[in-house]
This record gives sequence, structure tokens and C-alpha cells, in this order.
Amino acid sequence: MNNETIYLDNSAVTRVDEKVLEAMKPYFLNKYAIATSEFAYTMGIEAREALEDARQIIAESLGAEKKKLIFTSGATEANNLALKGIIYNQEKKNHLVVSAIEDFSVLNTAKSLEREGYEVTYLKVDAEGKVPLDNLKSAIQENTALVSVQHANQEIGTVQDIKKIAQFCQENDIFFHTDATHTFRRLPLNVNQIPVDLVTTSAHTIHGPRGIGALYFRDGISLKKIMDGGFQEQNLRAGIENIPAAVGFARAVELIDEKENKKIQKLRDKLINQIENKIDNVTL
Amino acid sequence: MNNETIYLDNSAVTRVDEKVLEAMKPYFLNKYAIATSEFAYTMGIEAREALEDARQIIAESLGAEKKKLIFTSGATEANNLALKGIIYNQEKKNHLVVSAIEDFSVLNTAKSLEREGYEVTYLKVDAEGKVPLDNLKSAIQENTALVSVQHANQEIGTVQDIKKIAQFCQENDIFFHTDATHTFRRLPLNVNQIPVDLVTTSAHTIHGPRGIGALYFRDGISLKKIMDGGFQEQNLRAGIENIPAAVGFARAVELIDEKENKKIQKLRDKLINQIENKIDNVTL
Repeated sequence: MNNETIYLDNSAVTRVDEKVLEAMKPYFLNKYAIATSEFAYTMGIEAREALEDARQIIAESLGAEKKKLIFTSGATEANNLALKGIIYNQEKKNHLVVSAIEDFSVLNTAKSLEREGYEVTYLKVDAEGKVPLDNLKSAIQENTALVSVQHANQEIGTVQDIKKIAQFCQENDIFFHTDATHTFRRLPLNVNQIPVDLVTTSAHTIHGPRGIGALYFRDGISLKKIMDGGFQEQNLRAGIENIPAAVGFARAVELIDEKENKKIQKLRDKLINQIENKIDNVTL
Repeated sequence: MNNETIYLDNSAVTRVDEKVLEAMKPYFLNKYAIATSEFAYTMGIEAREALEDARQIIAESLGAEKKKLIFTSGATEANNLALKGIIYNQEKKNHLVVSAIEDFSVLNTAKSLEREGYEVTYLKVDAEGKVPLDNLKSAIQENTALVSVQHANQEIGTVQDIKKIAQFCQENDIFFHTDATHTFRRLPLNVNQIPVDLVTTSAHTIHGPRGIGALYFRDGISLKKIMDGGFQEQNLRAGIENIPAAVGFARAVELIDEKENKKIQKLRDKLINQIENKIDNVTL
């Protein structure tokens, strides 16, 4: 990449921060035991501690308890687990509602569930890409188990009013999941202020490593495991824990601050301004 | 880890080789675009090339074509995909056979499929941990779709005669999967010499990074996707490609050579010898 390149695809993937890589390095080269060996030898205790410290940092940034956050291989797996994990565990409710402009990992999981016999409603959005609450209200049925609406869309940038949606779902005894992959650490999201039941986050959009995401799930929610095998992650996600990636994810969470977000907002406003002023017939 | 520590849990996870980390570094810090942006900008082309070069190296080490190898988040996901991907795609055959000493990621996937209504036979092994071919022969039914027997067991070290098992399955028109997580690059495995249909491999056992594995699948085999979302990996595994990890995986494959394996064999023989000579009543 030469000095003149300006990378504008940060919604797809971000550059890993050098400080994130530095934080990961000891877990690649020195502290490399598996966390489940914590009862067998000292390196295992170190590994477990690193994993749980990382979990604590990420959970805390959502206002959540650390035992309510499990690591996955990324946002795609977290979205798969949220939708399938909830719907497979229902006894009677077999209907889910997703917005029509969700990420493929929600949309195609919903389509896959539809092919399996579940009922799915795809919510239309308005001209600005917002989900009107009235559309949601009329989509709800007696057998609706879950609503999934992303916090903000990565292509058009529309931020949904997830507080209103979450409150409506809560009142109607329906689980509400939001894919916050593209807003995590960019926009405030506290699970104590917004009654969201499940939240998808990922490291790859905040200058953390690829291959790691996390799913928050509210206390009392039980999920059906979709990755079978070992008993890792409270027996909700099998596979040896990716500790270097978890540590990098946590470091990335710490590094994103208000200052950086303000800088990005200024750059965004400048870009929009220049385009609107210098090119005719442009509408945002 | 102090200088006196001898780490003996390399079957669980290995230390990442410095050369592997060096190979990954540019893909964390400089060449960080997503592979699916290859049609949009130059960095995407670089990303796609790095991913495909990595795939080529890993596939070649199994004697396979690169389009017959897809990346997953690790051995656990590769085993889930092999078993579920095959059985979900069958029209009539709903029976699978696994050895009783498989890794949890095979065993518990089989148990999960059993709860879904599929029929599973768990093959007993002999005193040395080997699957007797006769046991397999009597387990086979008209509706058997798949047999899964690992190449070698990580706890007791027994190497299975996968050539005989593969040939038997081929003659009986049954798919054969082997979990080679613990033998990949340690014991020879060439898909042109052994008619195995699906092979699980992973980077974490050969001094590569965690969070990446791969599944080889023979030409003509179609798998049902288990991770829904985007169209990555020939539309068989959704989620943005973990290029740094794939590059590290390939470098780890290159770095394991005959010399290192001979050194490990010598160390193993020395350890066994010393234990057998100096401690009474020991049987291997």
C-alpha cells in the first residue's frame, strides 16, 4: 500500500492496530497453553486468566456480566448462533422476524431456517433504511420467538432505533437480537439501558484480529449449541479457545475511544459536505 | 515459562513458530483488505492471491487440488461440516458410523445428529485402540452414508489403518472421513494413494495459529453449508476469510519437515525407553 492510498472499506475489515498485535504476541509465542488445561499445569492457569480477562473487558464495554458473553469465530457465527440457538430451543414458537436489510449472516440464516420449515417475516424498511415500528407491530404473531434487527447497516449507514424495538419486544415476550458488528464501540450500546437480549460483536471492525467475535446473551436465555464437540464456552461453543485472538479483541476494545470516534465523524461530515457542495444532483 | 519448563501438551496446542508469525504480520498490518473485494480495488487482489496461495500449499501437501479444500475456524468446525454437511445432504441414507474413541468434535456431532433422528453406530476398538475392520464390516447397513475414523488418537497415539478402511468404504459406496488433526504433516497422507473422501486438518497442532482449519473434500462430493451467510469458500463456509491465519497455516505446513518429525520420534522413543527401563510394571 503506497502513501497515497486512502482505504475506505473499513466497514468490511479494518487494519489490525500495532498495539493489538503486540498484545497478542505473547499468546502466540510464550503463553500458548489451552485454557482447559488450567487444572493440569501453570501455563493453563495463565491461559484461562488471559481468556477471562479478555471476556471481562468486552462484556464490560456492553455493560454486561462476563459470564453472559461467549466467544465465536466471528460475527457470522455469532449471528448463526443467535438465530438458530434461539429458534431450535423453542417448544412451540417457530416464527422469526428479520429486517430485509440485515447482513447476509442474518438474512441467509433466516432463509436456511425457512427451508427447514420455520416461518420467517422479512421487514420492509422506509426510504432511509429504517424499520418503522408499525411494520414490526404488524409482523408479530403469537408464535414469534425472535426479532433480529441490526444496530446499523454497513452499506447505507442507517442507525435503527433499537431501544424502541427492544422495548416493544420485551413487552410482547419476544427475544430481540441486534447485530452490532458495525456499531460496536462506535455508538453507545449498554444492555442495562436497552433491553436487548442478544448482541453480536466482532473484532475485525475495530482494528482487532479476524476470526473472533462474541455473542452477548441476557441472563435466563438458553441457546442450542450449533458447533458440537468439546465443552468450551459454557458448553455453548466447542473448539479450543482462540486466546491470542480474544486478547487482541479486548485490546482493540480498549483502544477505541471517544477521540477516535469524533475524528471519524469529522472526516465523514467533511466528505459528505464536499461531495454535496461540489457535485450536482447528489442526495444522501 | 521459565527455562526449565518442558511443555508436553503439543497434542492440545503448539507454540506458534516465529516464522509463522512473521509471515502473518503483513496481513495484519498492511495487506488487510477482504478477499471478496478483489473486483473493487488492488488491495483486494493482493488479499485474494494470498488466500489462494495459502490454500494451494495446504492442498498440495495432501496431494489435493486447491479447489477441493476450504478453510474453517478450526478442526472442530471442519469435523462438524464433514459429518453434518454429508448427512444433511442425503436423500435416503441416514446412518453414520464413527469409532468410539473419536475426538469430541466428531463424537458429540454424531450424538447431536442422533438426537435429531439420525442413526449412529459407535465402533468398538481393540485393546490397542485400533478399529478392527471386521467391526466396521458388521456395522455397515444399507442406509450407511458416512464412516468417520480419525487418523490417529491424540491421547493414546494409536494410528488407524485408514487405507484399508477407505478402500472398504469405497467398495461399499460409503463416504469416508478422517480427522487428521493430530497426524497432518506428521504422518504421510496423500488423497491419491488413500481413497479418503474428506480430511480434517488444523494449524494449531503444527505450530500454526489457532482459529483456522481446513476440510478437504473429494471431487463430486456436495456438502450442506452449516455456517450461513456470505458466499465465501465456494459458498460452503460463510464469514470473511481469515487471511492472516490462512497465510500462517500455510507457512506452518511448509516449516514442518522430515527432520523435525525424526527428532520428535527420537525424543518419543527415548522417553518410552527410560520409563520402561526405570519404572517397574509399566506397559505401553
